[in-house]
Amino acid sequence: IEHKEEKKLKQKLSKLHPADIADLFRELDLEEAKYIYLLADDETAADVILELEEDERRRFLEALPSEVIARRFIDQMDSDDAADVLGEMDDNRQQEVLSHLEDVKVAGDIADLLNYHEDTAGGLMAKEYIQVKESWNLPTCLRSMRRQGEDVNEVYYVYVVDNDGILKGTLSLKRLLLSPENATVKDIYNDKLISVRTDAPGEEVSAIMEKYDLVALPVVDGIGRLVGRITIDDVVDFMREEAEKDYQLASGITEDVESSDSVWIHTRARMPWLLLGMLGGILSSRVVGGFVSLLSEHPQLAFFMGLIAAMAGNTGMQSSAIIVQSLASGSMGLDTTWNKLIKELSIALLNATVLAVIILTYNYIVGAGVALTYTVGIAMFSVVVFASLLGTFIPLLMKRLKIDPAVATGPFVTTMNDIIGMFVYLTIATICYAWLV
Amino acid sequence: IEHKEEKKLKQKLSKLHPADIADLFRELDLEEAKYIYLLADDETAADVILELEEDERRRFLEALPSEVIARRFIDQMDSDDAADVLGEMDDNRQQEVLSHLEDVKVAGDIADLLNYHEDTAGGLMAKEYIQVKESWNLPTCLRSMRRQGEDVNEVYYVYVVDNDGILKGTLSLKRLLLSPENATVKDIYNDKLISVRTDAPGEEVSAIMEKYDLVALPVVDGIGRLVGRITIDDVVDFMREEAEKDYQLASGITEDVESSDSVWIHTRARMPWLLLGMLGGILSSRVVGGFVSLLSEHPQLAFFMGLIAAMAGNTGMQSSAIIVQSLASGSMGLDTTWNKLIKELSIALLNATVLAVIILTYNYIVGAGVALTYTVGIAMFSVVVFASLLGTFIPLLMKRLKIDPAVATGPFVTTMNDIIGMFVYLTIATICYAWLV
Repeated sequence: IEHKEEKKLKQKLSKLHPADIADLFRELDLEEAKYIYLLADDETAADVILELEEDERRRFLEALPSEVIARRFIDQMDSDDAADVLGEMDDNRQQEVLSHLEDVKVAGDIADLLNYHEDTAGGLMAKEYIQVKESWNLPTCLRSMRRQGEDVNEVYYVYVVDNDGILKGTLSLKRLLLSPENATVKDIYNDKLISVRTDAPGEEVSAIMEKYDLVALPVVDGIGRLVGRITIDDVVDFMREEAEKDYQLASGITEDVESSDSVWIHTRARMPWLLLGMLGGILSSRVVGGFVSLLSEHPQLAFFMGLIAAMAGNTGMQSSAIIVQSLASGSMGLDTTWNKLIKELSIALLNATVLAVIILTYNYIVGAGVALTYTVGIAMFSVVVFASLLGTFIPLLMKRLKIDPAVATGPFVTTMNDIIGMFVYLTIATICYAWLV
Repeated sequence: IEHKEEKKLKQKLSKLHPADIADLFRELDLEEAKYIYLLADDETAADVILELEEDERRRFLEALPSEVIARRFIDQMDSDDAADVLGEMDDNRQQEVLSHLEDVKVAGDIADLLNYHEDTAGGLMAKEYIQVKESWNLPTCLRSMRRQGEDVNEVYYVYVVDNDGILKGTLSLKRLLLSPENATVKDIYNDKLISVRTDAPGEEVSAIMEKYDLVALPVVDGIGRLVGRITIDDVVDFMREEAEKDYQLASGITEDVESSDSVWIHTRARMPWLLLGMLGGILSSRVVGGFVSLLSEHPQLAFFMGLIAAMAGNTGMQSSAIIVQSLASGSMGLDTTWNKLIKELSIALLNATVLAVIILTYNYIVGAGVALTYTVGIAMFSVVVFASLLGTFIPLLMKRLKIDPAVATGPFVTTMNDIIGMFVYLTIATICYAWLV
């Protein structure tokens, strides 16, 4: 079916959504994909490009001359998407593509957007929006909107500015449709203004849009002039990526990998934490090595080393996950670091007591020696409390040091707690065996 | 400032967004909050209620008579929010509140929505939407939209239906604004239709809206009749909750907890995994106990127990995180379970080789005995390979058993790998020491 039946294919393609064509692409080889591609009309082709994964897109575009990229793709895209695609190319290629764009204003907009960091409001925003002046009456307003509307794919709000371009408020299309013709913009616009500055971080943008349930958020410069707008679809993508990144970091994966990436990329993403874990394990072996005479005398101490290490790891991970999430969602509220630690301490004391009582009872029932029973019980209590506090403290510390606290969870906290757990366990063992045996 | 200055407070409140008033609430006690509440106008009051957390809302509403809830809150809300709030009450209270609603149609809509499961398209959708018939001309269309528009807060698309109410397509407000007056709906609507059935799970809804970058998604019944629409803000909330839940499950937290929840709720959410970890640790102590004579003869074997357990845990967690994410995002593509396992095996073999060589070299350099060096090296290799496969296999198995695979990551996989890791390590040690010493 792949060959020749151009017309049928064309018809089929025109019925598919670009996201579905992108899915289709993944199942074809490069030559077939190109063939299909040429059949699609310009706007669809540009949309398909956007739906591809970053590395697929790069491979596809590398083969094409700058002029084709400019005319067939970049020119058809919204400015934010165009900037994203160009941002993946090197500087020379960017210049070349931009120079081939026909409309200098569009090229200028894209060049502007390229200056912002990808994960800030400036990097997320698009230049396509509709603005009206507050002094206009509705017919003028509608005429201007029709003209501006040609370049804008989705219109959620119309932004109202004064004569200096300072953002004053929003006007919903619904309001516009339902208002009498003789009104002026001033009378009907909504002046409860929610906006962000270009340098606001992406997390702040998504938190604001989520909190206030917005579908579009205007972006202003340092003196309040409207320079762009961010739409919810870009923020949804951003949120998804952030959530995946945090999840992977908690599981010890350092790069954003997809299940479909190559074996090599996967290995590279997993190795750093494995090496750190290895280093931690070696350190832990040195710590345990310091207690060699104790262990050779009482080998049964080794039975519970795994239990103590696991409980230290688990409680530490739980505590750090809670803190990292509340830091990420900004729901820390007015709690100070101090309050957090005190609360974690209460939870830890409660958990530690329950767990220590269980393991004491277990060892009593199975008839482990007195010294071993007390050692494991006391160590369990100490290690759980200590690991919880460390799990709370490290993310807070990282936050203060401006490191992403998500890095702290998972293997990092677990590894530290393993080592400290072993030290605490064997130290307590030394004391217990000295006193009780 | 809290006392008496009613007018000033009222003015201030009218300038705040409901989400901000909800924030303010959290810092006040119940009496103060009620006082502030009575000052807010009805619609704001209803919005504030929605912005509160579930348990805060419940506490607040419990104190109020059904009639007040119906008139002041439910009547002001969109039907989906009203259904969510009512869904948190018991059946009797629901009936009471619904019976106090003035508009029987609204009460009927809400009662309908209450029938759907919370996490399906039916549970996420709202009854407020604007529909037009495909045969109408634009003036009729606009007149009808003005009438319908009164109840609808945000209009993104107008839905086009035929005479039987079957959904045919969408019409964007922009298109409507920019079209000539003498067109009919039939000529200008977009018939590329993306919709979901009421019984579609929430994950499918969010995947579709994300894939196609939609801000609103129409919901149809079994025969294609339009029954509601889902807006992106509800899906964003849903996505956030899902991501948080997965993250917490991976960190061993079984309930959806907020950092602000009570010590008791935190303990309850963390205890199940800690108990499972405890059980695993006790089992692991039995396994190690089976090798007691080996350990008393060669106590240095205990030095590396922590390292082996940690590496088994880490690699298992990494593998399961990748699988769980690709299952959640539906990006498994055409890969079969078999392909997944083979790919994971390649990555695992690569990682295992690197790690085994490192630890062999380390033990050679520090001059550990031959038997210990080989034991740790071989055990490292075997454990890493095995833990990766188990980490891949268990989530896939859970998926097939219709259990949420996210449950599999974190403590569960880690605990299993700990136990198996210890057994493998000490078995290899038995063989190595028998042969090499």
